[in-house]
Amino acid sequence: MKKVHLGVLGYGTVGQGVAKIIQERYEQFKEMIDVDIEIKKVLVRDLSKEREIKLDEKVFTLDYKEITENDEIDIVIELTGEIDKAYDMIVSALNNGKDVVTANKAVVSKYFEEFTCIAKEKDLNFLYEASVGGGIPIIKPLYDIVKLNRVKRVRGIMNGTCNYILSKMTEEGSGYLDVLKEAQELGYAEADPSSDVNGDDTLRKLRILSTIAFKQPIIEDEILMDGISKIKASDIKLLEKNGRVIKLIGDTWNEDGTIKSIVQPVAVFKGSYFSSVNGAFNSITVEGDMVGELKFYGSGAGMLPTANAVLTDCLDIILENQKTETHGVGCDLEVKSDTISGKFYIRYEGDNKELASYADEVLSESPYVIITKEVEFKKIKQIVSDDENTAIIRIEDGDY
Amino acid sequence: MKKVHLGVLGYGTVGQGVAKIIQERYEQFKEMIDVDIEIKKVLVRDLSKEREIKLDEKVFTLDYKEITENDEIDIVIELTGEIDKAYDMIVSALNNGKDVVTANKAVVSKYFEEFTCIAKEKDLNFLYEASVGGGIPIIKPLYDIVKLNRVKRVRGIMNGTCNYILSKMTEEGSGYLDVLKEAQELGYAEADPSSDVNGDDTLRKLRILSTIAFKQPIIEDEILMDGISKIKASDIKLLEKNGRVIKLIGDTWNEDGTIKSIVQPVAVFKGSYFSSVNGAFNSITVEGDMVGELKFYGSGAGMLPTANAVLTDCLDIILENQKTETHGVGCDLEVKSDTISGKFYIRYEGDNKELASYADEVLSESPYVIITKEVEFKKIKQIVSDDENTAIIRIEDGDY
Repeated sequence: MKKVHLGVLGYGTVGQGVAKIIQERYEQFKEMIDVDIEIKKVLVRDLSKEREIKLDEKVFTLDYKEITENDEIDIVIELTGEIDKAYDMIVSALNNGKDVVTANKAVVSKYFEEFTCIAKEKDLNFLYEASVGGGIPIIKPLYDIVKLNRVKRVRGIMNGTCNYILSKMTEEGSGYLDVLKEAQELGYAEADPSSDVNGDDTLRKLRILSTIAFKQPIIEDEILMDGISKIKASDIKLLEKNGRVIKLIGDTWNEDGTIKSIVQPVAVFKGSYFSSVNGAFNSITVEGDMVGELKFYGSGAGMLPTANAVLTDCLDIILENQKTETHGVGCDLEVKSDTISGKFYIRYEGDNKELASYADEVLSESPYVIITKEVEFKKIKQIVSDDENTAIIRIEDGDY
Repeated sequence: MKKVHLGVLGYGTVGQGVAKIIQERYEQFKEMIDVDIEIKKVLVRDLSKEREIKLDEKVFTLDYKEITENDEIDIVIELTGEIDKAYDMIVSALNNGKDVVTANKAVVSKYFEEFTCIAKEKDLNFLYEASVGGGIPIIKPLYDIVKLNRVKRVRGIMNGTCNYILSKMTEEGSGYLDVLKEAQELGYAEADPSSDVNGDDTLRKLRILSTIAFKQPIIEDEILMDGISKIKASDIKLLEKNGRVIKLIGDTWNEDGTIKSIVQPVAVFKGSYFSSVNGAFNSITVEGDMVGELKFYGSGAGMLPTANAVLTDCLDIILENQKTETHGVGCDLEVKSDTISGKFYIRYEGDNKELASYADEVLSESPYVIITKEVEFKKIKQIVSDDENTAIIRIEDGDY
C-alpha cells in the first residue's frame, strides 16, 4: 500500500474540510485506491485555538518550513488565503521537491506563470482546481477542452458571496448593507468582504480561466472590473420591471482575434440560464469550436465542496492521473479589454450633460436612471463619479 | 515526438467528426502535446460510398481484424453502434493489446464488467466518455466524485432525440409523429428511432452511470423504463396548464441503502432546472455527500461534440492521464426498482375501475385523464394496457 503524507498550510474552513473528508474516507482510500493518506503537519497561527475538526496536537506547527522543508511530506496543500506569504510557502515547497495543491486564487492569479514554470522545471505537480468555482470541476475539464478546441468564450458566476447577496436582495427586496450583514452572520461573507464585493475575487478566477482558455497570460491588469457594492434595492426593482435580474459575471472572449475580459454586474433576462443560478451557487460556461457550449454548476464555496476539489487534485497526484499543464504559451493574441462596449443601466445624481448624451432611454429623473446606447464601458467609467450614488449595470439581451 | 496510430471502427457521423478534428488540430497536437496522431485504418461497410470528411482511400477496410489485429495500431476507436459485433471487435482489440475507446453505449451497457475486467487484466485502457451525454464530460468527473463521495443520486436528460421531440411538441403544440418526422429529416432522429423514444438509450446510459456511482453492477434489467412515444400534444397542453413541462429523465438514487433506478417521462415545473434544458441538449446532475450537487450541461449528441469526447479519451491514453477505473466492486446494496412509487398523470380509454381507485384528481373523462395518489409505478404498469391510447407521466413536485 502506498503511504502518502500531506502537509496543510492553514486550518480554516477548507483545511478542516480536508481533514474531515480524510477522516471519513480513510478506509475507503485504502480499499478503493490502495492508498494510506495521513495529514502529517498543519500550519496554524494559534496553537491553542479550539477547532471543530480535531487532529492530534503534535501535527500543528507555527512554522511553515516544518512543512515545506519536511522530508516526510509528499504533498503540500496551501490554504492560507494570503498572497505574498503564500508565494514564499509555495516556492519553498516546490524547491524542496513537494507537489503543491492550492485553493488560493489570489496567489495563483498573481504568480500563475512562475509557479507553473518552477513545477514544470522540477517535474512536480502544481494543481489548483479548488481556486475557481469551489466544488465545481472546471480547471481539469478546461485543460481537456483546450487540447481539442479553440475556446470562444468563458463566462460565469464565480463568487458565492456576491451571488448570495444579489439573490437575497432580489428575493426579499432588501438593501445591500442589510443583506451583507446577514451574509456575514451566516458565514457567507467575510468580516472584510471587499475583495468579494468589489469584484477582485471574480477577476482573479477569470484571470486563471482566461489564461488557460486562450493559452497565453491574461493578467489581472488586462481585465476590466466593477463590483456590486453600489447596487441598491431600487436598481433591482427597476430592472425587475423589465424582466431582468442582476448577476455579477466574469466574461472573457475571443472577438475576431482580440481577447476581451471584464467582471461586472449584468442585468440578464429572467428565465435565462444565469438567472437560475442562485444563492451561494456558481456556474461557469465554456464555449469551444468543437464541443459547443458546456455548462458546469455547483457549490462555489463551502467547507466540504472546496475540500473535495482540493482532495481531487491530491488523488490525481497520488494516482498520477494529472500533471501540471503548460498554459500561457503558443498564442499571442492582442488583449484589449478597453474597447469593450455595451448598453448600460446607469443611476447617478446631479446633472451630467455628457452622460445624458449617451442616454437611449430615461427611466427616472431623481436620481437619474438611464439606459445608454451602445458605448464603451471605459468611457462611461471616465465620466461617472465613483461615489456610492452611482451604479453601472450592463444590459444583456443575448443568451445568458 | 510520439507517434500514435488510431484504428477507427465505423465511419458514420462520429467517426467523420474524429477525422475532422484530427485534420484541423493536427499541427496543434504536435506543438502542444508533442504527439503526431494518424488515422491508420477505418472500418466501413461500403468502400465506394462518398463521405463528407475525406481520407486516403487506402485506410478504408471491410475487415475489422485488419484493425484490431494490426500491429501498427495503438488505439482502437469503436463507433459501430452495433452490439454483438461490437463486442467481438472490442474483445479482439483488447486481446491484441490495443487500448480501446468507444462511444457505443449499447455495447458498454451490455458488457461493462467484462470489458473492464479484460482491460484491467491486460493493463490496457478501456474508456467510454462519449457513451453518455455526448460532448459533456461526465464519466471522468463521476469517477473523481466517487473516490471522495458517497453518491446519493444521479439523474439527467440523456437522450437528445427525445428531448428535441418533447421540446418541439411543447413549443409548437405539434403532435408526436409530426415532430418525429421533422426530427428525422433534420438528422436529430434515426430512421428507426425506437431505441431512443422507448427509453432504451437513456436506460443504457443510466446503467453505466449508476454502476459507476454506486460501485456495483446495476444492470439493464434492474432499471424500470417507459418511453415518450405515447405522449400526445393534448397531454403536454393539459400539464402546461398546471405549469409543467415533460422531460424524459433517467434517475438513479440510494434510498436508505437501497438502489432504485428508473427512466420515464416526468412532468417538472416550468422554471425548474431540467425545464430549462431544451432541444438536443443534455444535462446530468450528480449529488455527493461531500461535494453537494453538481450539474453538467452540453450537447448530448452531434458530430463534433461526440468526437470531441472520443478524442479526449484518446488524449488521456496518449498522455497517460487516465486509466481504466475499477467500478462495480466494493459495494453490495440491494437494487429494488420495483418499489419505486410516485404520483402519476395517466391518460387511458374505456372504463377501468381499478385505475380509477388510485385517482386523486380527474382532469378529463373521455379519454380519462387522472392524477394518481402516491402509488407504485409497477402496479400502475400492470393495470394499464400497453396501447398507444395510454400514457403515464410522473408528476414531480421536488427540485428538478
